[in-house]
Amino acid sequence: MLTVIVPASSANVGSGFDSFGVALSLYNRYQVLDLLPPHTYDIEVIGEGGKDLAAGEDNLIIKSFEAAIANFDIPPVGLKLRSYNAIPLSRGLGSSASAIVGGVMLAKAVGKLELSKERLLPLMVELEGHPDNVVPCCIGGFVISAWDGKEVKYVKLPYFKERIKIVVAVPDVTVDTKKAREVLPQEVSLQDAIFNLSRAALLAASWVTGKLENLPWAMEDKLHQPYRAKLFPGGEEILERVKSVPGCLGVAISGSGPSMLAFVKGDPTRTAKEMCSVFTEKGLRSRFFVLDVDQEGARIKETKAKMLEEVDRCPTIA
Amino acid sequence: MLTVIVPASSANVGSGFDSFGVALSLYNRYQVLDLLPPHTYDIEVIGEGGKDLAAGEDNLIIKSFEAAIANFDIPPVGLKLRSYNAIPLSRGLGSSASAIVGGVMLAKAVGKLELSKERLLPLMVELEGHPDNVVPCCIGGFVISAWDGKEVKYVKLPYFKERIKIVVAVPDVTVDTKKAREVLPQEVSLQDAIFNLSRAALLAASWVTGKLENLPWAMEDKLHQPYRAKLFPGGEEILERVKSVPGCLGVAISGSGPSMLAFVKGDPTRTAKEMCSVFTEKGLRSRFFVLDVDQEGARIKETKAKMLEEVDRCPTIA
Repeated sequence: MLTVIVPASSANVGSGFDSFGVALSLYNRYQVLDLLPPHTYDIEVIGEGGKDLAAGEDNLIIKSFEAAIANFDIPPVGLKLRSYNAIPLSRGLGSSASAIVGGVMLAKAVGKLELSKERLLPLMVELEGHPDNVVPCCIGGFVISAWDGKEVKYVKLPYFKERIKIVVAVPDVTVDTKKAREVLPQEVSLQDAIFNLSRAALLAASWVTGKLENLPWAMEDKLHQPYRAKLFPGGEEILERVKSVPGCLGVAISGSGPSMLAFVKGDPTRTAKEMCSVFTEKGLRSRFFVLDVDQEGARIKETKAKMLEEVDRCPTIA
Repeated sequence: MLTVIVPASSANVGSGFDSFGVALSLYNRYQVLDLLPPHTYDIEVIGEGGKDLAAGEDNLIIKSFEAAIANFDIPPVGLKLRSYNAIPLSRGLGSSASAIVGGVMLAKAVGKLELSKERLLPLMVELEGHPDNVVPCCIGGFVISAWDGKEVKYVKLPYFKERIKIVVAVPDVTVDTKKAREVLPQEVSLQDAIFNLSRAALLAASWVTGKLENLPWAMEDKLHQPYRAKLFPGGEEILERVKSVPGCLGVAISGSGPSMLAFVKGDPTRTAKEMCSVFTEKGLRSRFFVLDVDQEGARIKETKAKMLEEVDRCPTIA
């Protein structure tokens, strides 16, 4: 019995707008219960979304599965799936990227494709339309990527030895990705372009060299967060307040929000509480996850049926 | 007898506009022949510039020497200097940065200052007004830096093991730095800002991980080179033609030009000849240097007088 495991991901990381993404140790698990006739799908969702799964999120698995089947000449087949979802939907945590990566990986698993994940990436990016979530979701790690419409270029940053934790605070509200794109000015000052460019490069270099003391400064952004933080209650306040919590190395909007991401050295509790208490002050319910960088990315596991209930449950949420 | 040795530097490196800089194995050497009464200077220049030294270039040594004297409470003293200059002037190779770094390092040497070079950096950056030449000139290596008017932040990229050479082609023409700034539009599209941001970060990450195959692509720029390459004959043609020479990993305008920089794997001759032949086609005389990344930056050497004539001459120019 096959299960495809795909991580959540957080795009942008402040200064790295539309380029940076981090895979997170929070997973959706797509278990193949049976093979069905071509174009026939039966998907049961347990966990995030459940019966109220955001429109098209399950179709995204099917769409990318069928695209991979067609693209790699795999004999057509349908799927009976059980989807254990731990990635919150429409919160800026890459749930659509994980559906796309999951669908393609399911095709690889079912079709016994010998291609490496790297070879599957261009199709995944094309399906998503941008690389910043899909690439870390597929290969894991902290990744910088760019796409010129044809070719995906990326570098996975070597992980420095010092352990840091990632806190993700998820408020009980959604942000429309399209609107989050529309609020951005189409022209920016040369100074702001240079501001982000230098900080993004410094962030990448600081991550690789373990110069964590640079993070609060290197994650600063002038291209998207000043506009997007206004789209949901608490965004601006978290960006402003949380970075001064002891141990917090930097805070950013996760993707286009409304989840917020913080890197933390040492005990993450204070940072997590501060993030959620801002949401509470604004009248929003929220929860938080304390996560690691997932270094492996999407993977296929052979699992025994009776193990699954134990292995593939969603993590407890504080 | 003291000599301060300072490297040339090349700012921008394509996508890393106003942030990236590389120290080059091409040096000015400032030899202290004698101490003179305060505010008294006698500077003899041998090599680049010579008697025609660009206005203020020698004053820049004095100005930064005196600034350091004042800033670090060193007993005032004047200098009799012999300056062996190998760095071409007003060609985008950081000669003014080397004068500034040299002046401050002379004060450190003469005043027997125990401060590390890192502690001297803020003054150097303040004197230059921007960090992208001064930081690599001072500490060596491929450096990403930013300055907010108060604090200098930088990361020196770890040098990957694979050896590459740097070819610098220097035409017999100068570019006015002020004009090179004025030709830039003050507003850019968000897409161009993202273009440069992703490539600059990819360039830094590719350099660290030794993914040299990314360089031609990661050095691409939309913020400054399209405008500045028009300011001198051959700029656009070199950017366009030289990257396809076998072994050439990427080509960029050095600083604001007119020198051009190329990273090369293997024999650099073809790349160097192609660069210079473009200048020749445009009716410009030029020369080239084949250089390494200088990893040490500015340094103070105790030298015997009789050795100097031998050690501190300018390198032969092809």
